[in-house]
This record gives sequence, C-alpha cells and structure tokens, in this order.
Amino acid sequence: MAIARARAEIAALHGELVRNGLVVWTDGNVSGRVPGADLFVIKPSAISYETLAPENVVLCDLDGNVVSDTPGSDRAPSTDTASHAYVYRNMPEVGGLVHSHSPYATAWAARGEEIPCVLTAMADEFGGPIPVGPFAIAGDDAIGRGIVETLSGHRSRAVLMRNHGPFTVGVTARDAVKAAVMLEDVARAVHLARQGGEIAAIPQDAIDRLFTRYQNVYGQQPDPGRPAPTGPVDAATQTYN
Amino acid sequence: MAIARARAEIAALHGELVRNGLVVWTDGNVSGRVPGADLFVIKPSAISYETLAPENVVLCDLDGNVVSDTPGSDRAPSTDTASHAYVYRNMPEVGGLVHSHSPYATAWAARGEEIPCVLTAMADEFGGPIPVGPFAIAGDDAIGRGIVETLSGHRSRAVLMRNHGPFTVGVTARDAVKAAVMLEDVARAVHLARQGGEIAAIPQDAIDRLFTRYQNVYGQQPDPGRPAPTGPVDAATQTYN
Amino acid sequence: MAIARARAEIAALHGELVRNGLVVWTDGNVSGRVPGADLFVIKPSAISYETLAPENVVLCDLDGNVVSDTPGSDRAPSTDTASHAYVYRNMPEVGGLVHSHSPYATAWAARGEEIPCVLTAMADEFGGPIPVGPFAIAGDDAIGRGIVETLSGHRSRAVLMRNHGPFTVGVTARDAVKAAVMLEDVARAVHLARQGGEIAAIPQDAIDRLFTRYQNVYGQQPDPGRPAPTGPVDAATQTYN
Amino acid sequence: MAIARARAEIAALHGELVRNGLVVWTDGNVSGRVPGADLFVIKPSAISYETLAPENVVLCDLDGNVVSDTPGSDRAPSTDTASHAYVYRNMPEVGGLVHSHSPYATAWAARGEEIPCVLTAMADEFGGPIPVGPFAIAGDDAIGRGIVETLSGHRSRAVLMRNHGPFTVGVTARDAVKAAVMLEDVARAVHLARQGGEIAAIPQDAIDRLFTRYQNVYGQQPDPGRPAPTGPVDAATQTYN
Repeated sequence: MAIARARAEIAALHGELVRNGLVVWTDGNVSGRVPGADLFVIKPSAISYETLAPENVVLCDLDGNVVSDTPGSDRAPSTDTASHAYVYRNMPEVGGLVHSHSPYATAWAARGEEIPCVLTAMADEFGGPIPVGPFAIAGDDAIGRGIVETLSGHRSRAVLMRNHGPFTVGVTARDAVKAAVMLEDVARAVHLARQGGEIAAIPQDAIDRLFTRYQNVYGQQPDPGRPAPTGPVDAATQTYN
Repeated sequence: MAIARARAEIAALHGELVRNGLVVWTDGNVSGRVPGADLFVIKPSAISYETLAPENVVLCDLDGNVVSDTPGSDRAPSTDTASHAYVYRNMPEVGGLVHSHSPYATAWAARGEEIPCVLTAMADEFGGPIPVGPFAIAGDDAIGRGIVETLSGHRSRAVLMRNHGPFTVGVTARDAVKAAVMLEDVARAVHLARQGGEIAAIPQDAIDRLFTRYQNVYGQQPDPGRPAPTGPVDAATQTYN
Repeated sequence: MAIARARAEIAALHGELVRNGLVVWTDGNVSGRVPGADLFVIKPSAISYETLAPENVVLCDLDGNVVSDTPGSDRAPSTDTASHAYVYRNMPEVGGLVHSHSPYATAWAARGEEIPCVLTAMADEFGGPIPVGPFAIAGDDAIGRGIVETLSGHRSRAVLMRNHGPFTVGVTARDAVKAAVMLEDVARAVHLARQGGEIAAIPQDAIDRLFTRYQNVYGQQPDPGRPAPTGPVDAATQTYN
Repeated sequence: MAIARARAEIAALHGELVRNGLVVWTDGNVSGRVPGADLFVIKPSAISYETLAPENVVLCDLDGNVVSDTPGSDRAPSTDTASHAYVYRNMPEVGGLVHSHSPYATAWAARGEEIPCVLTAMADEFGGPIPVGPFAIAGDDAIGRGIVETLSGHRSRAVLMRNHGPFTVGVTARDAVKAAVMLEDVARAVHLARQGGEIAAIPQDAIDRLFTRYQNVYGQQPDPGRPAPTGPVDAATQTYN
C-alpha cells in the first residue's frame, strides 16, 4: 500500500515539473522514500513525461538496486539513482529529492555562484543563500556525496551543483518539488534584480526572524507538504539538514 | 448575498494570477472588501490554486479576525491578512488588494528602485513611476502600514515593497488584479528597455494628459472593473490615494 | 456578407495576440478593412478577450465614426480608432492594422531605438531595420499620423512608436497579425543577441536578395495571408508602403 | 507503409516545436528520411501548425524534387528543401533534420558565437561546444552545404547558422527534434549564466567522460529516439558526423 501510494505520488509530481517549466524533454527526476521501509521510488531513465505512470516508476533499495520482479523493474531507473540512494542513506530526515535543469537555477550553477538572500521569500523558504555544490559526474554516487556534503549544517534544502544544475530535498517528495519550484522562482527574480544594479541585502537577524516564523506559522495545520513541527524551531528546521 | 458574491469573485480572480504568470505554487493572495459591510474576504494560507474555491475563502473583519462559524473559518487566512486589514481600515476608497511575487516587479523591489515612467501605458494606468515601500516583515500589519504610507498622496495604485515584492490596490478586487497584471507587464518592458541603454523619459505634462484621459475616457461605460468617475478627474483619480 | 466575414476574422485574430503572448488584460487591438467598402471593423475598447465576439466588434467609417444601429454600435470602439482610420484613409494598400504592447518590441520603442537588421528572418519579413515613429498621445489621430509618416517610403510594415509600443500593417488583418508576431520574435532575438556582445550586420545586398525572394517565392500560391504578387517585386512590396 | 509512418511522424513532431516554444507562426521545419528508400518527407511551405497533417506533408527525392501524384504534392515543400536534400545526400547517417528560429539559439547565431560547453547537459548531449556555420541565403542548397561543412568531424549534431538560426540533425527525425529542444535549453541557460559573469569551463577530459557515458548508458534499451550503439563509443557517436 505505501509503495503504491509512493508510485502514484511520484508519477503525479513529475507533472508539476512540466507545469512549472522546470524540465524539457525527458530531463529531471523526482524520487520519494517509501514510508516505513528501506526503499524509494524513482523515475525510469529517459522516459517521456506523457508515458510516465505509477506502474513504470522504479522501486529501489537504499543501495540503489532495482527491486526485481516489481512493476517497472524491467526499466533502468534514472541515471542519478545511485546519488538519490546515497542521499537517503545519509540524510534520514529526507523523504524526497528532485533534480531539474531549470534555467535560472542552472545559470547560477554554471557560474558556481551562490544565490544571495535578498528576497524575503528566500529567507522564508531557504533560510539564507542557496549554496553551491562541487562539480561531479553522473553515473555513480558522486553527485549524492556532493549534495550531502553541501547541505550538511546548512539551512537550505536546495543546492546548485556546479556546471550542472539544482537538486532539492524535502521531508516528502512533494516538499522537495515545492523547493524546486520556489528555487527557480527566486533564482529568476534575483537574476533579474542583479541585471539592473546592486541589491540591498537582507540583514541576518531579519532573515532569521523570517525563516523561524515561516517554518512554524505559515500554512494550515496539517500542511499537505510538511508535517507540523513538533519541537523548537531549530530542531524542526534542522530536519532538513 | 454580497458575501457570497465576494467569495466567488475572489476565488475566480486567483485564477487570473496563475493565467498571467504572477504566482507559483501557493504564492500570492487577493482580497476584496464586502460592499456595505466592515468585512473582507481573503485566500486561506498555503492553499493550492487547484483547491481554492468560494467555500474555503476566509471571511474577516477589518481588524483581520476570522469571522467564526462561516465557510472557510476552519482555515488560517493568508499570512498577510493583518496587512490587508490595515489597508482597508486606513484607505476607505480601496475595495481590493493583491500581492504577488511576479518576477520583474519583484526584481525592482529587490533593488529597492522605483520604476521610471517611460511608457505611455504606465502613464495611463499608474499616472507616473511605481514607488518603493519600506522593508517590512510579514506576520503583523507592518506591510500594511508600509503600503498606506507609500501610496498616500501618490497616484500609483501599485507599490514595490523592498526586498519583497509588489502590492496593488483598486476600487474593486478585479481592479487590483488588473493593476497587478499591468504592473508586471510594464516592470518587464522597462527592465528589458534598460538592458539596451538609456531610456527617453516621458515629460511630466504628457504623463498628466495621458493619465487624465485614460482615467476618464478609456473603456466602456460602465467599465466592469472600475465605476464611472462621477466627479472631476482629480477627484476621481484621488479615490485611489 | 463582407462585413460579417470581417467581424468574424477580427474576433478570431485577437486570439492570436493572446496565444502569441503579445497582449495582457485588455491591451492591444486589431482592425481590418471591409473589402469593397469605405469601412473597417475594430475591437471595442477595454473588452476582455474572453468576451470578444463577432457581434461586439465595432463597425466604423473611414473617419473613425461608429456606424450606428449595427451590432456592437452600443460600445465605444478602441481608443486608437481615430488613428486606425487615419491609416486607412492615407494608405489605401493597407487592409489591416495591429497594435500591441508586446514586451521586447515595446522595450525597443521605450528607448526609441530602431531594431537593426541582423537576422535573415528580418530581411525576409521586413526588408531591413524596424523604424521608430514619433512620440504621440492616444485619443486623436496623432498616432496614425506618426505611423503613416514613418512607414511611407519604408519597406517595413512595422513601426515602433516611441515610449509606446509597436504597430504593424498588412494587406489583410491576418497579414498585420503575422507581422506583429514576427516583429516580437525578432525584437526578442536581437535583444538577446545584443546582450552577449556585438552583432555582425547583414550586408545590404544580401538583405535585398532575401527580401525579394521571400516576397515572391515563399509560401503557397495562393498564400492565406497574402495575395500572390502580380507585378514585379518592387511593385509588389511597395504595396505595403 | 514506411512512407505513411514517416508522414505521420513528421506531422506529429512539428507539434513538439510548438509545445517547446521553438517556433512562431509558420516558422521552422522538420524532415525525416524514409527508411529503406532514397526519399524524405518535409513540411509544406508556410502552412499553419493547426493545418499540418500527414496528408499534406510533402514527399521528396534526395535531389529535393517533389514526388508527383502523391499526397501533398500539390503544395510547395519548405523553402529549405534543397538544403535538407543536400544533407541527406551527404550525411548518410542522418535520418532527420530540424530548423527553427528558437530565440536563445538564434541570439548566439546572430552574433556568430559558438556556445561554450559549460554545462554537463551539453557535454552529455552534444559532446562539446555548439559550432557556428557560415552565412548562407535560403532558396538553394547553400544552407545545406554550410551544415555539412560545419558538422563534418564535429561531435555536435547542432549548428548555429550565422545571422539565421539553429539546425539540428539526428539518427531519426525524433532525435533531431530532441536535439533542437535540448539546444534551445542549453543556449538559454548559458546565455543567462553569462549575464552574471564569468563561467567556469568544464575540463575536456570530463566532457569526454560525460559524452561517452551518455551515448552508451543513458536511457532504456531500445531507446525510442536512438538505436542502441552497436560498436565502440567513438564509432557510435561518429554516426552523427
């Protein structure tokens, strides 16, 4: 049951990547942990978004191996699967991971430049600047190691992998997709802002107040994409990193 | 009846934010005054645009308190509700208010730079440049105070809140949405124009002629989004500020 | 019958403005001459694109007066009607006229800078650079006079009215809409090209060859948007100016 | 049968150009070789994308002549037909060819500047920078000669024709469309990246590893758009050039 729900959710969430203009052709991938099991589900490699369906989402263990004789196990999983598995093994608080080549976030990644926190929406959502991760080549878990290394001890649940593009994590797959959408939105606004001149930075204490408030107060209880924080703020927000 | 109409209108107008590319995910909010009552209706916090419907729009009094035991009163209203209420209390001529993070207007806001009036469409619609409001943190009515302070004595019904994004007001909620759409349109055109070099400013007397004509002559009588001006021009346009 | 056909065509062509991203809200207008009569049809002022239909398109004579007791005659025609009428009176070869605030063309207009002919598509379609027209205030026929003055003796069927936006003419309304779409497309490409550095100009003789070929050879015979040229090239292309 | 399949595929693939924002109005064209015959199918000239259907796709021989008395043979083929034919005659490994005026790729073409390989997606897909082809005038096979001359000995299956726009080839028409979509995506991301400052280049050995891996490992076997490579990597990738 949990696996079937995860398959359906992952198939549907890829539609958000398309609707929000984060991907073209077969680019990008979303994965989600299966609650209560050492498993996750992920997009098959190179599948068209029209064809993607719950039954061809691929089920993997936390070593990144396809679980044989399951729906979709005749397909190769996303080329980034080993990196997703690495993140799930090393960040137990992460329930979902998204990769895209969304254009503005990718532009920052191409320059290897972190996005400065000059918008209240960034302070709300990411708690500060968006960090840059190392250059890593797809195929093994090098990208995963770069994600974990960069996000450890960092409030942000988004990272710009150098010369590559953005990866976002969340407590659920939906939360990670939200982060991918919000990241591209702020990557674009800050890009545009900088084209016109210098940007007034938000003072650190204001960033802290915005982040604390947003993580605790914003939204309904329960929020569909994020469990209600149950501890003090720092504990709650540290669940992302 | 007036409340039901206001609910339906507010739910529908959020669709215009999406169609015009002004918002992503659950960003942005529209509110509208209930005619003939000290009440307004506003989007619930963090709701997806697909789920938003007349029955979950939240009814509030002018202190920003949710009216209990009404449809939608089980939900938290927009995180900006106290600021909307502040505007309604202090600008009786305002019938609607819109907030978005539309990208080009937000870029100007991030720099804290007013948009110069270099297009006839800006003169028509806003009567001059788009002003910048102070940096304010969401949660209480600080944003509302910044809006009122900035728009008082100003022709513009749009304000760029520093490091945050645009807010627009109107005589109706629909008029405020129109202002949000037109603001992003001119924010983009002027941004693009400036990338290519210096811009010839429109002389003040031409701005005045354009604004006067547009506020009095443009459109049908009655205009769906704006009541026919009944007094001299200055009086009519001053209803916004 | 010719009037009914013209109404239907003008109502449908406004949809192309929306689909091609040339207009927001109630911006923009298309008009078309009624073949065989001293009449033209034009969008009513400030109507939403969802509401626009053949029966509310407004029929005008060539002085810009609404023909009374016809469908749509209870509405005010576009605020630019006097200028459309001026163009029809003074450019008998023009069968349609389009105005929009499409963002990239408007950016060039805001700077008052002609678009240089650096793309073969511009040479094909416009025969050279896109000229800039004078600053003129809407309401009377000042814009129309600026259009006629600028396009006379010029190959281009597009003009950038200073601090305002683009106007395009064509042998039919559909041809003028095509010109508006192609203008925005090249305005954007040349804008983007210039952001990255200097642009190699196309030599004049190559422009001439491209324009001549395109006006005579491109497309099917008969072309849906353009009558087959019946004379030598210069005569055919001069029908636009 | 092979001809009917090719017609249906070419008609459908033009829809991808529209959906991916690569073309406006009647711009752009896709052609595809008919497997097992010295024939190819191509879009008719100046047809609207709504009207395009399998039965009006034009069948041509490899000299670019329309095959008479076949469906669509009453129409003129794309104005670029002679150039498509030249490519098919001189690059036997090419099964499809796409031309568009997609805005970011066209901007690089207008400047005559190759797109540097600063993104892993470019290394994957194109194996290095995107080269620039000569200035050539449409109508005869000059563009085709420029394409063949530029792509010979080059890994890239995309070329930026100077002052004109992009052309892409592929082992199938679908593969060429994929290349057109990916080209615009990277042209945009690198354009945006450069607006913010210098870009860290990807070292050549990393480019080589990425290209080799992607051409051999990425995707499912069989890939819908690309036959499984059967020889060593260099041989497989050299099938494009």
